[in-house]
Amino acid sequence: MNTSVSDPYYSRTSGEGEMIPRQDPTVWGDEAGPLTETQLADFRRDGFLFFPSLLSEAEVDELKAEAVSLTKEWPEDRPGLVREPQSDVVRSVFRLHAISERYRRLFADPRLVGCARQLLGSDVYVHQSRINYKPALDGKEFFWHSDFETWHVEDGMPRMRAVSMSLFLSESHEFNGPLMVVPGSHETYVRCAGETPEKNYKKSLRRQEIGVPSHEALGQLVRESRGIEAPKGPAGSVVFFDCNLMHGSSGNLSPTPRINLFAVYNSVENRLQDPYCERPPRPDFLAEREIYPIG
Amino acid sequence: MNTSVSDPYYSRTSGEGEMIPRQDPTVWGDEAGPLTETQLADFRRDGFLFFPSLLSEAEVDELKAEAVSLTKEWPEDRPGLVREPQSDVVRSVFRLHAISERYRRLFADPRLVGCARQLLGSDVYVHQSRINYKPALDGKEFFWHSDFETWHVEDGMPRMRAVSMSLFLSESHEFNGPLMVVPGSHETYVRCAGETPEKNYKKSLRRQEIGVPSHEALGQLVRESRGIEAPKGPAGSVVFFDCNLMHGSSGNLSPTPRINLFAVYNSVENRLQDPYCERPPRPDFLAEREIYPIG
Repeated sequence: MNTSVSDPYYSRTSGEGEMIPRQDPTVWGDEAGPLTETQLADFRRDGFLFFPSLLSEAEVDELKAEAVSLTKEWPEDRPGLVREPQSDVVRSVFRLHAISERYRRLFADPRLVGCARQLLGSDVYVHQSRINYKPALDGKEFFWHSDFETWHVEDGMPRMRAVSMSLFLSESHEFNGPLMVVPGSHETYVRCAGETPEKNYKKSLRRQEIGVPSHEALGQLVRESRGIEAPKGPAGSVVFFDCNLMHGSSGNLSPTPRINLFAVYNSVENRLQDPYCERPPRPDFLAEREIYPIG
Repeated sequence: MNTSVSDPYYSRTSGEGEMIPRQDPTVWGDEAGPLTETQLADFRRDGFLFFPSLLSEAEVDELKAEAVSLTKEWPEDRPGLVREPQSDVVRSVFRLHAISERYRRLFADPRLVGCARQLLGSDVYVHQSRINYKPALDGKEFFWHSDFETWHVEDGMPRMRAVSMSLFLSESHEFNGPLMVVPGSHETYVRCAGETPEKNYKKSLRRQEIGVPSHEALGQLVRESRGIEAPKGPAGSVVFFDCNLMHGSSGNLSPTPRINLFAVYNSVENRLQDPYCERPPRPDFLAEREIYPIG
């Protein structure tokens, strides 16, 4: 357990529902990169950036085919394949950066890692990567959460110096449960209620119940920020969003699946410590503890 | 039980997933009324009509206040107050036409009943009325369904000669689980799987599992129709939709509730028979068996 008494981001102990200002920059340092000054300012203000059709259809097709092969050939003893609650449909596939040369190449693509380096002001590595399949008609919702709260408490990520990259592997539209964000919410850290149960990830990957903000806090966040936004666009579109941005998504009631790739870039200067809760660290497929800088 | 062997709309027996063409007109007869020829043609083609801001804010405020009073003063022994699964939050309040003079007046308003009379080509009465509260942040989804399938099988409604009126009592927007419809789907009747359990309504009002179309049928319907639409607009907006239109709604992940009023107008020439399943009729608060023509 991380016993640092001065941890500004403590959670799941006392102070439940408390909201404190972010204690870290959103854009770190002055690395050169593909983002313009305006884009950097937008990211600082909103906590996310959206690039419609950043990748081509051909690239997306190749990535989807690779994902299908990975799932089909998944070794029984390898962790990181998560199924829907109440069914056997695949919900998530983890640690693509460690098991696929094609995905490693994607994460090292200058169009992607270049943005991450520029935002985090240092070399970066992949902290976690995954594909989320939200199946047609009964893909379930992901309730609102800040990734950082979990990564801090359960993985021991010290500071807000990580950025998520979400790549649409299918069109993301109004009816298939697109990513929803609360612009500006990355500026506020919300302490959550409840103690972290043992092996919490086994449950939280199916349905998160610990590490979710209170209804009161969410209401206040949305009112004091600028509402809710859902970036929508064709396959190949990319959203970069800050590790502390409040986000979630509705169920998928459309007749086609929504497929999304996530990769989390973390600064090499922000490598994981012991978790900030009294539990052993989560498995590698959720949080890399070995660092391989890329890009 | 209704033993009519020639029932074209049989369901929950054999023929599961079978899709047959509608056997009834969508617009019945030539009653005069507030709808134009173009609107009638739109309704015939799409199965619904949308009127943004048909009622004023003041009218909506009055109706909301009345609903709050009704809920507060609800007699313990009166059926028709339904709560959310896994919580005590009110989800629906039924039979407003029988318990509130203010709502009776609303349903007899020429702007509303005039459309219903015109579409159904006869005098009409209120078959069912209710308010659905979809609570902030954890209001649950309603899966896709045709109301007529249930009304036919469980209530004994003979033909497709009823129309629903949905009045927004709060703004309906992208993030609070708006009504979603499959335009044109009213032209097709989908037989559903499963036998009707005893007192099915007690469960189906919380989460419908019987009388829902198969994933295959839904996929085909959406592909062969014109996708999905979600009419959105301010409080006071009204949607009229055919009793056989496929519709549903997502959960509400926004920080404010979505409040919707439904009233079902049925033709006096389409009054309920014995149910088409081997169960007793559902209670009055779900399906009026006494007819009081209005408007």
